[in-house]
Amino acid sequence: MKKVVFILYVCVIGLVSIPEKGNAQCFRWQPEYEELTDARKAAVEEWSKLKDSVFVSWGSTDVRYVKTEIPRSLVRRQLWKGRAWRGERVNAQAFIRTLKDLKQVEVSVSDLEAAGGGKITAQHVNAGFVRYVMTDELNKDKRGTCGYRPDRTLFDSSLVADVIDRNVIECIEAKSVRPLWVTVRVPSETPPGIYRGKLTFNREEIAPLTIELNVSSRQLPAPGDWAFRLDLWQNPYAVARFYDLPLWSEEHLEAMRPLMQLLADAGQKTITASIMHKPWGGQTEDYFKSMVMRVKTLEGKWIYDYAVFDKWVEFMMELGIDRQINCYTMIPWDLSFRYFDQASDSFQSIRADVGSPEYIAYWQPFLMDFARHLKEKGWFEITTIAMDERPMKAMQKAIRIIREADPAFQIALAGNYHADIEADIFDYCLASAQVFPEKVLQERRKSGKISTYYTCCSESYPNTFTFSPPAESAWLGWYAAAKNFDGYLRWAYNSWTKDPLRDSRFRAFGGGDCYLVYPGGRSSIRMERLIEGIQDYEKIRILKNECEEKNNTAGLKRIEKMLADFEIDRLPEQSAAEMIRKARQLLNKL
Amino acid sequence: MKKVVFILYVCVIGLVSIPEKGNAQCFRWQPEYEELTDARKAAVEEWSKLKDSVFVSWGSTDVRYVKTEIPRSLVRRQLWKGRAWRGERVNAQAFIRTLKDLKQVEVSVSDLEAAGGGKITAQHVNAGFVRYVMTDELNKDKRGTCGYRPDRTLFDSSLVADVIDRNVIECIEAKSVRPLWVTVRVPSETPPGIYRGKLTFNREEIAPLTIELNVSSRQLPAPGDWAFRLDLWQNPYAVARFYDLPLWSEEHLEAMRPLMQLLADAGQKTITASIMHKPWGGQTEDYFKSMVMRVKTLEGKWIYDYAVFDKWVEFMMELGIDRQINCYTMIPWDLSFRYFDQASDSFQSIRADVGSPEYIAYWQPFLMDFARHLKEKGWFEITTIAMDERPMKAMQKAIRIIREADPAFQIALAGNYHADIEADIFDYCLASAQVFPEKVLQERRKSGKISTYYTCCSESYPNTFTFSPPAESAWLGWYAAAKNFDGYLRWAYNSWTKDPLRDSRFRAFGGGDCYLVYPGGRSSIRMERLIEGIQDYEKIRILKNECEEKNNTAGLKRIEKMLADFEIDRLPEQSAAEMIRKARQLLNKL
Repeated sequence: MKKVVFILYVCVIGLVSIPEKGNAQCFRWQPEYEELTDARKAAVEEWSKLKDSVFVSWGSTDVRYVKTEIPRSLVRRQLWKGRAWRGERVNAQAFIRTLKDLKQVEVSVSDLEAAGGGKITAQHVNAGFVRYVMTDELNKDKRGTCGYRPDRTLFDSSLVADVIDRNVIECIEAKSVRPLWVTVRVPSETPPGIYRGKLTFNREEIAPLTIELNVSSRQLPAPGDWAFRLDLWQNPYAVARFYDLPLWSEEHLEAMRPLMQLLADAGQKTITASIMHKPWGGQTEDYFKSMVMRVKTLEGKWIYDYAVFDKWVEFMMELGIDRQINCYTMIPWDLSFRYFDQASDSFQSIRADVGSPEYIAYWQPFLMDFARHLKEKGWFEITTIAMDERPMKAMQKAIRIIREADPAFQIALAGNYHADIEADIFDYCLASAQVFPEKVLQERRKSGKISTYYTCCSESYPNTFTFSPPAESAWLGWYAAAKNFDGYLRWAYNSWTKDPLRDSRFRAFGGGDCYLVYPGGRSSIRMERLIEGIQDYEKIRILKNECEEKNNTAGLKRIEKMLADFEIDRLPEQSAAEMIRKARQLLNKL
Repeated sequence: MKKVVFILYVCVIGLVSIPEKGNAQCFRWQPEYEELTDARKAAVEEWSKLKDSVFVSWGSTDVRYVKTEIPRSLVRRQLWKGRAWRGERVNAQAFIRTLKDLKQVEVSVSDLEAAGGGKITAQHVNAGFVRYVMTDELNKDKRGTCGYRPDRTLFDSSLVADVIDRNVIECIEAKSVRPLWVTVRVPSETPPGIYRGKLTFNREEIAPLTIELNVSSRQLPAPGDWAFRLDLWQNPYAVARFYDLPLWSEEHLEAMRPLMQLLADAGQKTITASIMHKPWGGQTEDYFKSMVMRVKTLEGKWIYDYAVFDKWVEFMMELGIDRQINCYTMIPWDLSFRYFDQASDSFQSIRADVGSPEYIAYWQPFLMDFARHLKEKGWFEITTIAMDERPMKAMQKAIRIIREADPAFQIALAGNYHADIEADIFDYCLASAQVFPEKVLQERRKSGKISTYYTCCSESYPNTFTFSPPAESAWLGWYAAAKNFDGYLRWAYNSWTKDPLRDSRFRAFGGGDCYLVYPGGRSSIRMERLIEGIQDYEKIRILKNECEEKNNTAGLKRIEKMLADFEIDRLPEQSAAEMIRKARQLLNKL
C-alpha cells in the first residue's frame, strides 16, 4: 500500500497562491515520498571511469536524464544563457551526477542582477529537483496508447524524470543522476538587460551554476490575458481522494489551490464541470460525480440544486480561470442517466437514446432550469453544454434539445470535424489529425467562435505521456500557431492514478496520459514545456499582429516560413526539439 | 426462475376493498400459479383400497391435510355445525380426495338462511381452495428456527396446506387431497338464529356440503374497534418487488390494497414505518428503505422530506389502520446511518455509537423536525419512535435523545423486560417467554400504555411457521387474554420470500416466519386462525367486562379457570387445538 508521509508544517496558506513563490514554499499539500526503485542498474564500469566524484552542469530541457546513465555532456557547463521577454517564464535544466551518496542536498537561488541595477529577485526563480516516476510505453504496434493494460508485464516500464519537486532532496544516491529544473518568471516591469544570478548548493563539492538571462524589451501579457485557449480538464475528485478529504470542504479547496493556480498561471481559460454522474463512465481512477443534485420527487417533479457547481465555478474564478465553463455531458458513453429517486430512497438510472421521450423528459427540464440559474449567476454567456465525439445523429438530436431549452445556449464539442453541425458549435476542438477548412476557420474566428485541437491516447506524437520527448509538449503550442488554432485541449490535467507521484501508469492508456501535474502543486517537465509552447504561440500572435498593423508582409512571410515545419507527419524524421530550436532562433530575430 | 402468469381481467378496483367479497373476486393482483411438486408420492396401495372415486367431507380447521395422504376421517361429514357471535367471522375446512384428475373444479356458496327468514347472503361466505406451499422445519436441536440456512438440504422440506386461494382450482390431481377453506363473516345486523346454506360444486360427482351456523345474540365489535392491539409489521417494499411496480406508484398502492385490507379486517392497529435506511439490516428478502428523505446539503444543513412517509401513512389510514404509527428505528443492528450527501452526490453513512456526538448530530435535528411535521399532520400523539431489543445502555441513551428533542415523543420497544426503562416505553412488547410484573401491568393499563408480546424465530411453539399446527395461531390470542396482554406483535406480515406462493422457506428462519399472507390478498390458514384467537380475546374481554360490571365474581372465576391452561410450557403435552377446543366449550357457555 501507498504510504505517504505528510509534512504538516504550519503553513501560511496565502503563500501558496503567490505564483512567484513557485511550488516549493508550502509543504501542506506536498507529501514527502520516495521514488520507486529503478530496475536498471548503473553500469558500474562506466561510472568507475569518472574522475569527479560529484559533477554538476547545465544540461538541456529537451532531455529526460536517465537516473542510472552518465549524461553525455562531459564538459561542465557552468553558465546557462537564456533569453526572455518581460513577463515570460523561461526554463533551464541542470544535473548533478555523483559517485557517492549525497544526503540532504539543498539548492538556493540568488537574485538575478543586471549591470544597470535592474533586479529579478530570487522569489521569481524556482529551482526544484526533478524526481523520477514510473512510466510505460506506446502500444506494441507503436500506434498511440489507447486500450486497457490489465497486464503491466506486457509493457516495458521504466523510471523517467518528470516531477519538478522542491529545492531540497533527501538523497542523491551514489552512481545516479539528479536533474534540477530552473524556472525564471520575469516580472513584467523588469527593465530590459542582461541579468546574472547563481545557483548555490549547501555542499561545497557541488559547484555553483550561473544563470544569464537576456531580457528583451518585448512584453508578454499576463497568462490571464493570453489569447491561447488552454483547456486541460480538471478533476477535483482526484484531489479529494488523494488527500482523503471531504469533497468541497475548505480543506479540499485548499488542497486544490496550488494545483489550480499552476493551471491558471499556464493561461487556462475553461472550467471543467460535470452536470451528470460519470460523464465518461469510470475511465479515470476517480470518476466525475455530478456537480448538480437531481432529485425526482415522489410526485415526479424534478428538483435541481447547483450548490456544488457554484462552489467549484466560484473557486476557479477566484484563481483567474473565468473565461468559460464547459459542462459535460448530454451524451455520455453508456447513455445512462442517474438521479436520486425519492420514492425508492435510492439512485435510479434511466437508459435512454438521445432524442427519445425519456431522454427529453430527463434533459429538457434540467436545461431550462440550468439556463435560468446560469443567467441568475451571470454565467450564461460563458457556459457551454459540452460533448465528446459521438455519432452525428445523436449530436444533432442533442443540439436540437439544447436549442429548444434555450436558443442562446452555447455548445462545445471535442471530436471530429462535421460540416453539418460546425455552425452550431461555439467551442469546437478537433482531434490533432484534423483541421478546419480554411474558410470555416476564418468564419469561426470572425464570429468569435473558438477552434482548437486536442491530443489524447490516440497520438503517438506529439504528446505528453511521461515517456514523450519533453519538446513535444512545447511543440503543441507551435502547432496551434502553425494551423491557426485558438488553442489546445487535453482531457486530463490531474486525473491522478492511485499513486501519481511514483507511478504514472494506469489501467488504460500510456503513462502520464491521465495527468500533467503532480500532487502538492508540483509541476512537471511536460507542463513547463507546454507553457513554453503557449508563450511562443503568444509571441507569434503578437508579432503577427504587429506585422499586420504595419503592413509588414515580409515579416508575415518570415513567420509563415518559421511555422511551415510544424506538421505532425514531419515529427518522426525531425525531432520536436530540433524543430523548436530552429524556429526559436527565427522567432528571436523577429 | 419463477414464472407467474398474471390474469389481467378487467377488474373493478373498488371491489377489492369490499371485505365481504373475500379474496376471490378480483384477479388483478392474483397471479395464477402452479404448486411445487410434492416429493412424497401417494401410497398407491392405500389409495387403491378406496371405494369412492371422489370423496368430499367436512374436516377440521386444526389439520393441515397432507396432499398425498388419505385423511383419517373416512366417514363423510356432510354437515358442518358452527357457532358465531354477530359480527364474527368463523372458519370451517372441508376436503376433497380423488382417485382421478378433476379439472377446473369450482365451488359455489349459497346464502345462509334461517327458519325465521333471516339471511346471511352468499357474499359473506368465502370458500377458497387451500394451496400447498413448501416449508422446512425447526432447527435440528428443535429450538426455534433462528439462524441462517444457506444449505436447504440440511433441513427436511415438505409441501404444506396453507394458502387460501380462489374458489376455482385448475386441477385436483388423481390420488391427492385438496382442502377447501370456508369463512363466514356474520354481518353485525344478523338476527340471532340457526342459518343453513350449501356448498355446491360444478361437478356432480362432488356432493354438496351443508353449513349450519348458530348465530347468537352476542355482538362482536367491528375489527377497527377491537381492543386487541395487533401489530404485524407491513413491508410495502416486498409488494413493489413481487409485482415489479415502481415504489409508491398508484399501481403499487393498488397492489397493496387487498393485502392491507385483510390486515385491517384482522384488527391491525399499527402502521409500520421506516425512518432510516435498512432498520433491520437486510434480514428480509426486501429490505426496508427510509420513508424519510434525508439530504445533507453542501453547507452541512439537513433537509428532510416526508412525502413517502405521509403517502404510506395516509394510505393505511384510509384502510382503517389508524391508531398508531411505529417508526423504526434509532438503534439499528449495525449502527450505520445513511443520508444523501450533496457534496459527493452519493449516499454516505456514518457509523456512530448511540449517544455519541455524531449520533446526536444525526438524530437530534431529525427528531425535532419530525415532531414538527407530525404535529402539523395531527399525528404526533399516535406516533412512536420504535426500537427492537438492544443493549440497555444504548436504549437509555436513545430515550434521552428522543426526550430532549420533544419530551412528549412516545416510544415503542419490542424486547426483553427492563424495569429501568419500563416507564419510558409507551408501547412495550415482550418476547413470549416474558411477562410484566402484575403491578406494572396494571399501572401500564391504567395510564393508557400498551403492553403486548411477540413471537419470532426464537419460539418453537406457539408460532405461525407454515409447519406450525394451525391452532397455535389461534392460541396466540388466548395467551394474550390469559396473561392480560393488550395484544400481539409479529415482525413480518408480508416480508415475502422470492417466490412466496410456492415456497415459504427463506435463507434464514423457519418456513413462513417472514409472512402470514400471500400475494393477491390471499389469506392463509395461519392468518385465519390468528384472527379467530383475536376474536376469542375480544369475546373474553367483553364477557369479563360484563361480569365486572355486574359484580359477577363467579363468572370471572370461570373465565379465569378457562384461561388457566394457557401456559406456553403446557403446549408440548397438550396441543393448542385441544386447549382451544376445551376453552371454547367453556366460552360458549358464558
